[in-house]
Amino acid sequence: METLVVVSHPEIEKSDTQQFLKASAASLSQVVWHHLDSRLPFDVTAEQQAITSADRLIFQFPLYWYMAPASLHQWLTDVWLKQFVYDARGGLLHGKSLGFVVTFSQSATAYQLGGSVGFSISQFLTPYAALAAKTGLTLLPPLTIAQFANQTDLEHQQLLVRYQQYLTLDHPDRPDEQAQWFIDRLSGNADTQLLADQLAAQTDDIDRLRLTLHELKAGESE
Amino acid sequence: METLVVVSHPEIEKSDTQQFLKASAASLSQVVWHHLDSRLPFDVTAEQQAITSADRLIFQFPLYWYMAPASLHQWLTDVWLKQFVYDARGGLLHGKSLGFVVTFSQSATAYQLGGSVGFSISQFLTPYAALAAKTGLTLLPPLTIAQFANQTDLEHQQLLVRYQQYLTLDHPDRPDEQAQWFIDRLSGNADTQLLADQLAAQTDDIDRLRLTLHELKAGESE
Repeated sequence: METLVVVSHPEIEKSDTQQFLKASAASLSQVVWHHLDSRLPFDVTAEQQAITSADRLIFQFPLYWYMAPASLHQWLTDVWLKQFVYDARGGLLHGKSLGFVVTFSQSATAYQLGGSVGFSISQFLTPYAALAAKTGLTLLPPLTIAQFANQTDLEHQQLLVRYQQYLTLDHPDRPDEQAQWFIDRLSGNADTQLLADQLAAQTDDIDRLRLTLHELKAGESE
Repeated sequence: METLVVVSHPEIEKSDTQQFLKASAASLSQVVWHHLDSRLPFDVTAEQQAITSADRLIFQFPLYWYMAPASLHQWLTDVWLKQFVYDARGGLLHGKSLGFVVTFSQSATAYQLGGSVGFSISQFLTPYAALAAKTGLTLLPPLTIAQFANQTDLEHQQLLVRYQQYLTLDHPDRPDEQAQWFIDRLSGNADTQLLADQLAAQTDDIDRLRLTLHELKAGESE
């Protein structure tokens, strides 16, 4: 799967969060880092080619007044032309997925009813839900990063894993795909092969238990 | 009341809608037309002064992918700095109101559950609700303009009235303020004074009937 990470950030060199994410994605061979602000004015043909080549698009940005910075809006205006993204028969980006990596400086709990912001990230992203519906894109749940600067080293390591999974897994939220992701990385190294084997065995166990549970429930309803 | 109409539109000279609205506002002495795209790069001090001088801000734009064009986002990033719009004691724009004039090329009925867009204009404007809450602005219900090019002359005239009222009335949706707006314009001209008198008398009648109805209802509950 090819992933295009579309980054909107006017001061990316000053952003520790973006530099961390860029380094986290650097080892992934099928991930293209695409910083919008440094590509202005846009070469529409090149931008459309980058979208066409990708199976997954990620819109990655800090929240500025609860929205993306200007460059993402400029890109959508210039590049996402009607004839490129939809026609009378449907969305021309059908088969691709759209995810979001959204960073902000308040706590995650601010973004809910009664929180200091009072609205959810999903509410703020509503226009993109309409855009996805129009163009045939499948939405992924957003990956949100709150207060990166305040996170511990362990939290940063966990974020690196979550981010790499978000860019590469078919279903980044599914535990079985997450487990397989670890197994792939732990295998083939003498130190970690045992750990990988154990993780694989436990994943199989979980699958068997789920199946048993499913059969028991099916029996109940007969 | 001073109103600042903040217009975001990259091709305003080509927009019949925007030119119509500009002409509609031209006769209003306390309305400032503020076209963002022609003010780039922004003089932050001048922009902040314009906001400070206004009692009402109107964000006026066509929907581009269900959002404002890039210039409004650029303006918010550059001008709406933390120290200008809020501090520990609260929103520094308290006492001002914020309205929206949103134009789009689909029918108004598309913007609802089950419509071809499937989301409402209010849902798309959620980030601005959070912005208003943070800065102390009072929100006005949006004035939406669907398919301007398809409207009849009569609909255009009605839009002119609705728009002028939206820019100038304390409560643009209240029938009594709307009636007073007409009375003010019809008075002092021999041809229309009679009409104005009749409208004023009817407005008084409606007030009296409302009072009577209120008293009757109060009696019922005693």
